[in-house]
Amino acid sequence: MGRCEVVVVGAGGHARSLISVMKDEGIVVTAVYDESFDDPAFSQSVLDVPVLGGLSDVPIGNSVLAASGDNAKRERFARLVVGQRKCELAKYISKRATVSTWGVTVDDGSCVFPMVYVGPSARIGVGCIINTGAIVEHDTQIGDYSHISIGSTIAGSVSIGERCFVGAGATIIDKVTICGGVFIAAGTVVISNITAAGTYVGVPARRLTV
Amino acid sequence: MGRCEVVVVGAGGHARSLISVMKDEGIVVTAVYDESFDDPAFSQSVLDVPVLGGLSDVPIGNSVLAASGDNAKRERFARLVVGQRKCELAKYISKRATVSTWGVTVDDGSCVFPMVYVGPSARIGVGCIINTGAIVEHDTQIGDYSHISIGSTIAGSVSIGERCFVGAGATIIDKVTICGGVFIAAGTVVISNITAAGTYVGVPARRLTV
Amino acid sequence: MGRCEVVVVGAGGHARSLISVMKDEGIVVTAVYDESFDDPAFSQSVLDVPVLGGLSDVPIGNSVLAASGDNAKRERFARLVVGQRKCELAKYISKRATVSTWGVTVDDGSCVFPMVYVGPSARIGVGCIINTGAIVEHDTQIGDYSHISIGSTIAGSVSIGERCFVGAGATIIDKVTICGGVFIAAGTVVISNITAAGTYVGVPARRLTV
Repeated sequence: MGRCEVVVVGAGGHARSLISVMKDEGIVVTAVYDESFDDPAFSQSVLDVPVLGGLSDVPIGNSVLAASGDNAKRERFARLVVGQRKCELAKYISKRATVSTWGVTVDDGSCVFPMVYVGPSARIGVGCIINTGAIVEHDTQIGDYSHISIGSTIAGSVSIGERCFVGAGATIIDKVTICGGVFIAAGTVVISNITAAGTYVGVPARRLTV
Repeated sequence: MGRCEVVVVGAGGHARSLISVMKDEGIVVTAVYDESFDDPAFSQSVLDVPVLGGLSDVPIGNSVLAASGDNAKRERFARLVVGQRKCELAKYISKRATVSTWGVTVDDGSCVFPMVYVGPSARIGVGCIINTGAIVEHDTQIGDYSHISIGSTIAGSVSIGERCFVGAGATIIDKVTICGGVFIAAGTVVISNITAAGTYVGVPARRLTV
Repeated sequence: MGRCEVVVVGAGGHARSLISVMKDEGIVVTAVYDESFDDPAFSQSVLDVPVLGGLSDVPIGNSVLAASGDNAKRERFARLVVGQRKCELAKYISKRATVSTWGVTVDDGSCVFPMVYVGPSARIGVGCIINTGAIVEHDTQIGDYSHISIGSTIAGSVSIGERCFVGAGATIIDKVTICGGVFIAAGTVVISNITAAGTYVGVPARRLTV
């Protein structure tokens, strides 16, 4: 990442994972802020990092990572700190990830976790999570504020829209296009294009109807 | 691991995998013992390590790893060498695994293989196998003598009981609780709690009835 | 690999992946040749490596990797450069793969990608792809010109025939035998022997009939 000091917004399970891997790679996390700060039961620290306030308490002008596995919450955190607290979004690319040096772009606010592979010419949008052990192959695009979960496998030349969730252990074959707002459940196998937002499950993927 | 010399009890396929990765990381495996030692057809060595006897021949007071992919056999081996041979159980955590330094516990007799990820505050019981490429996320607990197979993905805040088997390539989503004695077949996707021992298969997991 | 300079035959998505990981590990790729070279729209370079001609233009006597994810095409490329251009097939084993030093064989023309695990006594035939993040466990055999896709999991003592395709995220349990010419779709879970060529899908695998 561009700098070695960062503030994390969010204090849930995903934030703990993120802070753990960053600290273990020598990145200094100076403080955590969370919207539940005023709850008396709320933890005062996350892995030895102090929780210093709510979202409106984030110091002006910091470099921030919004940390939540929930796409809507993460986007809300990111937009708030940029818009109201004049912060800039950091990015994190683990030293234990294998990221091609050929034409890959990872936009601000995104995190690439350990044991991830990102192939040549892959493009990862703003505020994404590429979580532990995920594979994002050559020429694949991930839209803004999407979450690619642990152990998922995305083949080459896939296009995933904005605000998508690809569940743990899911697989997407090559050249598939997925529109925005799609929730792909854990273990789902996607073998053809998805053109409507919604929840998809199964092998092969089918739309879940209520 | 605490010491660099270890005796392995068991000489099957899983023992060969374990000895291979330990030796390739510089750990000295001094001898193998196996219950089939008296069979005339039995191999006299495993990857250049001599097989020196049956279980009752394990020298008193050694540091031992019980090596079998079968939970019941591995537990039996471990209890025998501790109870009858006054040995202590070693543990093995691969240098090629990524284990959080934050609040993780790995109890005696357990092995964490290469390419594994273990997140913050995860707890792994006695005599477990966390096999190659498995992901065990933050705050997840694995009960004693369970086997988490190759390429499986276990999300955060999962609780797995004692003597469970999670098959190759299986996926368990976050916050699921699984009781003891559960066999989850390869490729199964668990999305809700399991409260009865038995065998579970499919996407999503269902109990297999005879 | 035995030498640090190699010519790649093929210029598609898989070739780009291969060239990316080889160059990032310091291997010199001197030129690319592709059967579509005479197409005026064809790219003149792949990741800064010049495309110098068609298959019949490959210089005599080079060390060559045939790069295509399609088994038939990759075999055709390999046989042509060996037979007509008197080349020898190189092999590539990523520095970021974990390959047991105990009894593993990887035959000429094969590529072992980053984040792969290959266990003791595994044997990989001629012209295979063991793609990113795949696990090939102890004592498993992979036949010539087979492709083991990204994120797939193959347990111990499995036998896979020649010209097989194991799709992304697929799982094969231990001791299964699969004959030649089998196509296993992405995400498929194989739990018993396959004795007839064809396409297999699902959890557990069933033969796909038209």
